[in-house]
Amino acid sequence: MPVPTDPLLAADDDARVLARTLLSRARHASLAVTDAQSHTPGISLIAFGLDPDGAPLTLVSGLAPHMAALRAHPEAAVMVGSPGAKGDPLTHPRLMIRVRAELIPRGTPEHGELRTHWLGLHPKAKLYVDFADFAFARLTPVSAILNGGFGRAWRMGPDDLRPA
Amino acid sequence: MPVPTDPLLAADDDARVLARTLLSRARHASLAVTDAQSHTPGISLIAFGLDPDGAPLTLVSGLAPHMAALRAHPEAAVMVGSPGAKGDPLTHPRLMIRVRAELIPRGTPEHGELRTHWLGLHPKAKLYVDFADFAFARLTPVSAILNGGFGRAWRMGPDDLRPA
Repeated sequence: MPVPTDPLLAADDDARVLARTLLSRARHASLAVTDAQSHTPGISLIAFGLDPDGAPLTLVSGLAPHMAALRAHPEAAVMVGSPGAKGDPLTHPRLMIRVRAELIPRGTPEHGELRTHWLGLHPKAKLYVDFADFAFARLTPVSAILNGGFGRAWRMGPDDLRPA
Repeated sequence: MPVPTDPLLAADDDARVLARTLLSRARHASLAVTDAQSHTPGISLIAFGLDPDGAPLTLVSGLAPHMAALRAHPEAAVMVGSPGAKGDPLTHPRLMIRVRAELIPRGTPEHGELRTHWLGLHPKAKLYVDFADFAFARLTPVSAILNGGFGRAWRMGPDDLRPA
């Protein structure tokens, strides 16, 4: 049997609904970056939410290695969809998105809007959101793969991930 | 107050115990790679376990994008320690390890030993472990950061992660 050159399916409406549901429910995510010093992959757990336009957003401490990484290399990847405590973790659906990160300067009107929106998603972030070294990073999708957790995976573009 | 240049602590025995506990309990992990085609970060959910010597190990399908990535760029990073369903996900401890991946050829004695060991950790993998495109990848630690989930983080070396 020949090995298919691309085992991924084209996005359809069911896949889009699943991808958008994973995105809208996620409050944390895994972030892959290129480390600023070693230039090799780095990985971090990040707080996660969607901005008012439905774009992935995170709040990062300036002391976190991934802040330096995103400043040096804005290309990154983010994964949402946590395995539950039971069953085979690889059967749980997850969405992997290539993104380009953009840091939002503090003191701008945009920062103020995102701050209010973020505290609605993450009320406990009020403890640190105003620390001088924290900043929002918008993670604009470039492309994505949705793994349905049952041997089916779909290629997606930015439009497939936007709220309908 | 001056910003410390390195906010990370040196590893101590309590941190080593926590890191080794996270590693020995993990049955899945997040893997950051450098994509073979785009040369930008990629991220995947992987099955995870320790080999008989305590080194991180995964079983990968040849159809997975991260298999091609690891072949092109063996430097990667892996994160273990899943947030639970409740509470602030960022308060859960997690271990982030820079690794160098090494694929184990099928048909070698080492593959046979790892296969038996892996099926003890992941009994359901018997459904696909013998598929021709699946291979084990050993993820040898280069360095690590343990985030205790309560504002304390430690730098670690490979020796800190080995079973005592």
